Amino acid sequence: MTLIAPPGNRITDVAGIEVGHHHRVDPDARVAGDEPGRGWATGATVVRISAPGAVCAVDVRGGGPGTRETDLLDPVNTVQTAHAIVLTGGSAYGLAAADGVMTGLERAGAGLSMDDRGHVVPIVPAAVIFDLPVGAWENRPDADFGLAALAAVTPDVAVGSVGGGAGARAGPLKGGVGTASVWLESGPAAGVTVGALVVANPVGEVIDPTTGLPWGATDDDMVRYRLGTPVADEIAHLTALSAKQTVLNTTIGVIATDAELDPASTRRVAMAGHDGLARAITPAHSPLDGDTIFAVSTGAVPVQSPVPGSPLAVPRGMNPDVAVLAEVCRAAAGVVRDAIVQAVLAAESVAGVPAYRDVLPSAVH
Amino acid sequence: MTLIAPPGNRITDVAGIEVGHHHRVDPDARVAGDEPGRGWATGATVVRISAPGAVCAVDVRGGGPGTRETDLLDPVNTVQTAHAIVLTGGSAYGLAAADGVMTGLERAGAGLSMDDRGHVVPIVPAAVIFDLPVGAWENRPDADFGLAALAAVTPDVAVGSVGGGAGARAGPLKGGVGTASVWLESGPAAGVTVGALVVANPVGEVIDPTTGLPWGATDDDMVRYRLGTPVADEIAHLTALSAKQTVLNTTIGVIATDAELDPASTRRVAMAGHDGLARAITPAHSPLDGDTIFAVSTGAVPVQSPVPGSPLAVPRGMNPDVAVLAEVCRAAAGVVRDAIVQAVLAAESVAGVPAYRDVLPSAVH
Repeated sequence: MTLIAPPGNRITDVAGIEVGHHHRVDPDARVAGDEPGRGWATGATVVRISAPGAVCAVDVRGGGPGTRETDLLDPVNTVQTAHAIVLTGGSAYGLAAADGVMTGLERAGAGLSMDDRGHVVPIVPAAVIFDLPVGAWENRPDADFGLAALAAVTPDVAVGSVGGGAGARAGPLKGGVGTASVWLESGPAAGVTVGALVVANPVGEVIDPTTGLPWGATDDDMVRYRLGTPVADEIAHLTALSAKQTVLNTTIGVIATDAELDPASTRRVAMAGHDGLARAITPAHSPLDGDTIFAVSTGAVPVQSPVPGSPLAVPRGMNPDVAVLAEVCRAAAGVVRDAIVQAVLAAESVAGVPAYRDVLPSAVH
Repeated sequence: MTLIAPPGNRITDVAGIEVGHHHRVDPDARVAGDEPGRGWATGATVVRISAPGAVCAVDVRGGGPGTRETDLLDPVNTVQTAHAIVLTGGSAYGLAAADGVMTGLERAGAGLSMDDRGHVVPIVPAAVIFDLPVGAWENRPDADFGLAALAAVTPDVAVGSVGGGAGARAGPLKGGVGTASVWLESGPAAGVTVGALVVANPVGEVIDPTTGLPWGATDDDMVRYRLGTPVADEIAHLTALSAKQTVLNTTIGVIATDAELDPASTRRVAMAGHDGLARAITPAHSPLDGDTIFAVSTGAVPVQSPVPGSPLAVPRGMNPDVAVLAEVCRAAAGVVRDAIVQAVLAAESVAGVPAYRDVLPSAVH
């Protein structure tokens, strides 16, 4: 049963952000000559950004990325927005999903306006995960997957083995899609929401094979994820599985905030998100991951420059948003970490890749 | 009549490099509701890299790039090769052409080998030019254009209003495709070939509107391009035209060399190519250009590390290829400059965009 992330803990808590998934999971739809049980096990996820004038940035830190329209997002460049971000399976082939998203956005008149006759160029950055061996090699997302995922966008975020995470693996376990968000109650960024959505497919492990729990799981985590200490023989099973690592993977994601940040600050939020990967995954950012994090600032919550003379005053020559930015970055690392953990805990087994809930049922309440 | 670049002055002088164009130029194939005369005027060019183990890199220096698979080419990353590079019209929509090139390469079994069953992932970086208003907005390269351009690859390089340059503009004049190469006769890189192919579509001008000749044209240029001093009323015509600038453009290209360079050195060659843009185009690298240069090192000519104790000896801690690299970079800037000039001189008028040869016929011998 597919889980839907509750309001208050999902990227769509940031107004102007919606998420759509399209995937195909069907072990019987295999291609002639391919191995039995390897049919369809892949998909695409679209993060639709409808907030006008949203600022977008990206930080690529994996050693084997597959991306599209990322150079454009450099803060020194001219276009500073995006209309949708595509997170897709299919390795480099899956970049075709962005074509379909462009088609759908153009039909809806969404994009950078290029003339006075209604012509637009939608900006659709994309990143891919490597999931080709999970299904049949030839079964991978194309433009139609992107179009279908865009058509499915909603504030209700399905998590687990869905969309771009349908064929995801996380070390020896099933990976998937996760989301999280936080509303900052106090401090310089009070009133700001920071959310993340990830497709977790890392080479490394999200679950400590010696405890059967997320790395550094806190008491808070145990409550939030409704986890208990798994029994010893289930941990032993995980330890055995973890010897059989995958080698080509990738974790990709989007952070969204309603804080009004400029392009360079938005890029810093994307950079901070990679600390969430580092905390959730060991090893993270391997040479065979293509870890890529996008960040979006919708700008609905104005950033108040600190009052000159106050303890928060920032001298001329420094980014005046630095106090707010520091809080958003701290939150960004947190929600990315939480989203990755959720992705693995929510995943269901696909194409024989075992899910956490199947390997460690005693931990799941 | 389409011009074919002669052997000795084309990118395909580097063994293992071929070029294919596919374009559609047809003013009558217009879309209902669009302006008369605006039909098809766009295309795609594929630079096919069949040299095994060729190293590829990229440098993006325009303010409005449209790219695909460029993050992968960072020298710190894991994949260091490409199987084809796509230079295409159609703005961001045109990135779809790379899908077709991937399809064609996969069918031919060309790509990174991913298992022992013949499965490959072709690496196909791409960059686009903005040519949408030259033809009908809806007429732009798709996957089929990429497939057709790949099928057309040959060592014979057509130049002018072809392939990805079919709809190109260069300031007020028609832009297009140009190529050039040089064989280094002496010095540390003796025996090395450096070639370039560009799609010249800059915001800025390639022809000095006060002389009617390429910026800084030398006596050598006048002989090589068979140019004469244009008559005054033709220069006056150009000066008048140059008041009417385009605003969204981009120059993209590929440099190829047979020198055996590592990924970081290959990136330096791409960087050097941008100096060729700076010399050929004024202004170059504008915020509304997406100027992007790829570089390829096929590695057929081994780079000899300098003999320790010789005047060329490079201390440990410095790149041992530096003497060869310096020569390749100098040559790279030169061939990019020459290719841009050729693109404009060879172009034919398309969709009412006037060609150099039509505006300044007295300069053309």
